Amino acid sequence: MIIVTRKGVTADELDHIRERIEAVGLRTHVSCGAHRTIIGCIGDEHRLQHVPLLSIPGVEAVHAVLKPYKLASTDFAAEPTRIAVGEVEIGGREVVTIAGPCSVESREMLECTATRVRRSGARALRGGAFKPRSSPYSFQGLGEQGLEILAEVRDQTGLPIVTEVMDTRQVDLVAGYADVLQIGARNMQNFALLTEVGRLRRPVLLKRGMSATVDDLLLAAEYVMSQGNPHVILCERGIRTFGTSTRNTFDLAAIPVLKRETHLPVIADPSHAGGRRHLVAPLSYAAIAAGADGLLVEVHPDPETATSDGDQSLDFEEFDALMSALRPFAEAAGRTMA
Amino acid sequence: MIIVTRKGVTADELDHIRERIEAVGLRTHVSCGAHRTIIGCIGDEHRLQHVPLLSIPGVEAVHAVLKPYKLASTDFAAEPTRIAVGEVEIGGREVVTIAGPCSVESREMLECTATRVRRSGARALRGGAFKPRSSPYSFQGLGEQGLEILAEVRDQTGLPIVTEVMDTRQVDLVAGYADVLQIGARNMQNFALLTEVGRLRRPVLLKRGMSATVDDLLLAAEYVMSQGNPHVILCERGIRTFGTSTRNTFDLAAIPVLKRETHLPVIADPSHAGGRRHLVAPLSYAAIAAGADGLLVEVHPDPETATSDGDQSLDFEEFDALMSALRPFAEAAGRTMA
Amino acid sequence: MIIVTRKGVTADELDHIRERIEAVGLRTHVSCGAHRTIIGCIGDEHRLQHVPLLSIPGVEAVHAVLKPYKLASTDFAAEPTRIAVGEVEIGGREVVTIAGPCSVESREMLECTATRVRRSGARALRGGAFKPRSSPYSFQGLGEQGLEILAEVRDQTGLPIVTEVMDTRQVDLVAGYADVLQIGARNMQNFALLTEVGRLRRPVLLKRGMSATVDDLLLAAEYVMSQGNPHVILCERGIRTFGTSTRNTFDLAAIPVLKRETHLPVIADPSHAGGRRHLVAPLSYAAIAAGADGLLVEVHPDPETATSDGDQSLDFEEFDALMSALRPFAEAAGRTMA
Amino acid sequence: MIIVTRKGVTADELDHIRERIEAVGLRTHVSCGAHRTIIGCIGDEHRLQHVPLLSIPGVEAVHAVLKPYKLASTDFAAEPTRIAVGEVEIGGREVVTIAGPCSVESREMLECTATRVRRSGARALRGGAFKPRSSPYSFQGLGEQGLEILAEVRDQTGLPIVTEVMDTRQVDLVAGYADVLQIGARNMQNFALLTEVGRLRRPVLLKRGMSATVDDLLLAAEYVMSQGNPHVILCERGIRTFGTSTRNTFDLAAIPVLKRETHLPVIADPSHAGGRRHLVAPLSYAAIAAGADGLLVEVHPDPETATSDGDQSLDFEEFDALMSALRPFAEAAGRTMA
Repeated sequence: MIIVTRKGVTADELDHIRERIEAVGLRTHVSCGAHRTIIGCIGDEHRLQHVPLLSIPGVEAVHAVLKPYKLASTDFAAEPTRIAVGEVEIGGREVVTIAGPCSVESREMLECTATRVRRSGARALRGGAFKPRSSPYSFQGLGEQGLEILAEVRDQTGLPIVTEVMDTRQVDLVAGYADVLQIGARNMQNFALLTEVGRLRRPVLLKRGMSATVDDLLLAAEYVMSQGNPHVILCERGIRTFGTSTRNTFDLAAIPVLKRETHLPVIADPSHAGGRRHLVAPLSYAAIAAGADGLLVEVHPDPETATSDGDQSLDFEEFDALMSALRPFAEAAGRTMA
Repeated sequence: MIIVTRKGVTADELDHIRERIEAVGLRTHVSCGAHRTIIGCIGDEHRLQHVPLLSIPGVEAVHAVLKPYKLASTDFAAEPTRIAVGEVEIGGREVVTIAGPCSVESREMLECTATRVRRSGARALRGGAFKPRSSPYSFQGLGEQGLEILAEVRDQTGLPIVTEVMDTRQVDLVAGYADVLQIGARNMQNFALLTEVGRLRRPVLLKRGMSATVDDLLLAAEYVMSQGNPHVILCERGIRTFGTSTRNTFDLAAIPVLKRETHLPVIADPSHAGGRRHLVAPLSYAAIAAGADGLLVEVHPDPETATSDGDQSLDFEEFDALMSALRPFAEAAGRTMA
Repeated sequence: MIIVTRKGVTADELDHIRERIEAVGLRTHVSCGAHRTIIGCIGDEHRLQHVPLLSIPGVEAVHAVLKPYKLASTDFAAEPTRIAVGEVEIGGREVVTIAGPCSVESREMLECTATRVRRSGARALRGGAFKPRSSPYSFQGLGEQGLEILAEVRDQTGLPIVTEVMDTRQVDLVAGYADVLQIGARNMQNFALLTEVGRLRRPVLLKRGMSATVDDLLLAAEYVMSQGNPHVILCERGIRTFGTSTRNTFDLAAIPVLKRETHLPVIADPSHAGGRRHLVAPLSYAAIAAGADGLLVEVHPDPETATSDGDQSLDFEEFDALMSALRPFAEAAGRTMA
Repeated sequence: MIIVTRKGVTADELDHIRERIEAVGLRTHVSCGAHRTIIGCIGDEHRLQHVPLLSIPGVEAVHAVLKPYKLASTDFAAEPTRIAVGEVEIGGREVVTIAGPCSVESREMLECTATRVRRSGARALRGGAFKPRSSPYSFQGLGEQGLEILAEVRDQTGLPIVTEVMDTRQVDLVAGYADVLQIGARNMQNFALLTEVGRLRRPVLLKRGMSATVDDLLLAAEYVMSQGNPHVILCERGIRTFGTSTRNTFDLAAIPVLKRETHLPVIADPSHAGGRRHLVAPLSYAAIAAGADGLLVEVHPDPETATSDGDQSLDFEEFDALMSALRPFAEAAGRTMA
């Protein structure tokens, strides 16, 4: 931590600032420049996270030296983490696509979707049983019945299942069925929920919140990891900006930034990022070109009749075409596809 | 709902679009302009919320006619809702200030703070027992012990208590102590939690999410209200923008916008909006000038030693000065103060 | 400037970084912490603004110690700058309101407007002769004829005139008529234009750009001041965010932040910030409550027929009511009104 | 234009709204729903752009049916526009890379850079003679001398030159040298400058403003085109959001959105979007994968010593590696490279 003091800071103020830092066990180094006096803090910076330095008289600005996360950092583990999901690993050389409907609507539709997306190259099946909906009057998902359908379809097709958990009370229930537990964008800072999935040893797919910085996302991963669950897959799905031509603003550059800052695998959700069917393919190509480890794609037998997210769901033909067209991009990026 | 079709939409496409709308029980009215054909939907627009109109061939854009919320709207209730909290009403003529520390740190500090803020004119006491912290390594609150302290200090001072609930599993516990349950910004779209507090009849203080639009905030209120709990107090606390000179960007104009769109009371949190002590006073004056029904202010006996949010907490003298200076602004706005 | 190096930075990299800093005449101080090595730069930090420190191997992050502006800073001049406009001073104790139509439409409408706004308490007249319009098909202003009308109405009413200049070629022309030259939000970083108005000694009303930070705004002021023109009035008029319920997001907190960082006067434009008539009054009250030195308000004889910005223009009765209602807020803020 | 009226709108208000619309020559169609009355406007919607509909009593919301731009729209020209720059066409099958330094620093460095980037596959040379700098104390470019150097190096290497024009007074001067005139992000809404380059018949490279929506960008193109210059190349270079991990937020999805809305060519600037050398390659791959027609890349002989933008400039080896690695992505996208 580096503390920049105000112009004209007094000796008493400097002493008091130093006392506060030394009180938590760090040493200080004062450097008097022509315009400002700087105080460097030597020792474990994390101890200063709780100290309201800006409230101390004489302090103008505070700059952190270290990132606020540890376990998620490439400083902690230089090698990329690979997370086994069914028969594949996310974070390895293969580009892994997770596909399926937004919501599980019935056994028939899920079975049919699973069969088709697997044939096109999907390696896991997504589908929501509990749905976060911005309106209380929208379809909220089939609940446990949806989980049962997911498990049956997994048994039938061999595709591991990825499904969202929204409530701390449902973590054990969902973990009883799912291969990967998804934390949605709106719950990325639901710390109680992050702590709860951190107690499991099941992979967690953590979606970036709409207004989360890269550091916020990695701190959310840190919540899960600090409870003992190292199996976190990060997912870029678009952020909220002034833009109105897409549902969210796909922050593509976050992919290479994350690949540099963390050892965790990073996938992209082109469906939520763009919000329209015709954007799913170009966003998918771009994500893989930029280094993403995989994709999360919404596919529905008949998007026009979907109970949720139909605007951005591909039909089977579109998904099949996407997977074919994706392969040369994956190869250009030095990756393989199933 | 009004549907704008693409240039060159075919008759078959038009028929298909109309069928999809009529299938959910609405009637359609087609209007052929020089450049575009428009389809008006007549009937209960909310039935179309689930229909992925943009995925239907020939549809270019969809414009909603009605707001997505009902119970929270001034269409539903024209008269301002007043919510009783202890001996005062929020949403009436009196400007109500809720003050206290970010976290309950000990019985002594809370008691001392309550006594002082009450003397300065605060009508309720805030204090966190369960704290949402962006780092898993930060102080997470005293938990149930914090709730007990809050209740004791209420008994002693007569100030009703406002405290946050973060987890569906803790709703009953927190409701056993609190006069008002606070939903934090990060949980504004934790729909499971909104539903749970909706089952109570206790007032809910709902803070606006960092990337929530005014409509998103009112839909979150609708979640609570649709479960049967009409006692929702809205709180503007700043949004996330590109700005870096304040912790959040205080969206002052949201206050008069909300006062026009909803009958629910609206308060402001100048502490989180600005993030710095010296900004609390100007933001407070401005909020009341713009029509807010009250304030939520962080106060700490010694901000420099606060376990959380010390940078933005006022000390007792600062809070007392704020309350004195606020009075003429409240009067200019046609309001009273205790 | 403080340089944080990467974990594992080599001695050669450190030497190379130091050489680059010392090459521009600064000294360095290296501090080796447990996790990172920090290099402090001692001397005139502004010399390092051109050095691409982040491109040097081993550099992880760079933190500036000083603000990038000088003349605009309270470090440079502690006393508030007062700028004379006609018979009043902006930046003094009096709250100064500048009012008038978005565009000068005719002599009659301007004369009528000037007479009425003066009677209600306005101290200067705004009106556009050259209009920046986002569509090339919109009304672009009367040009020089508009300037002539402005000057005539000034002679008649005594109100000094504030009008926008959009083109370096028109600076002398506009300066031949105007008392204050306005730089619009879209030209806040039109550096050629800033330089040109910097050569005058006429007051400049500089509007904040839609995506400008507070530092960007002060750097734009610095452009004008560094050419020798110290008479810069800053104007907060809303920024672009994800919000959709107002035309822009009024960044109210920028007012007290600016009052702390700069000695220049700060006014607010509630018309552009809100974009709707009914928001002008609450935003005006709030701006003055937060410490603004004045207001810039759009007023039109018949807003429904305005050639531009009618949605946000007040009519004469509304403006008169605003000015009456504003007075107690100004007094609560320790200010006077005409 | 579709007008949604307020709940409880009166017959007189409805009549008045219709009169205002009919006064500009459109017809109206009134549709009374259960909750709201809707007025459809039939005829040339652009005539309503000047009418402040929201200021008319009884109007709640206004929805445009048509896009505000015409000449730039795919409605106007369905076939992609190809713009000849030297020997290549931008907007055709070939991916075209424009490379070179941020600023022209000397004849030697530009000559050397041009020779090297041409060898690696660049088809045009970029280089700034007039530089927009956010600080008045930064290097502002060599001015006309820089233009002369650019022209000499073009003659020598055959590479057409792309350079920025910042001031209406310099348009003829710059056009005397440049093959393509660049309008920078900060001048995207400098309407005087757009109009001036619209009078030429030279290609214009129009960079998206930091807070410009896709519609704003296309309206800026419309300014140029409506003056008679149809040769506009659009450039996505990142927008300003809350994100801090990159210089700007690269809005990748804008590329496919633009390719759908306009016939104009679209290129990407990965240097400004990311702001760091290591991000240039992944952003370049992604842009081409998403359908961009070309790239604008900053290259410098020794980025560490660049007078501007060194943090994001590639050296020759990095640029050569980028061009080699880009080829398979271009081919995957069905494009060619030189």
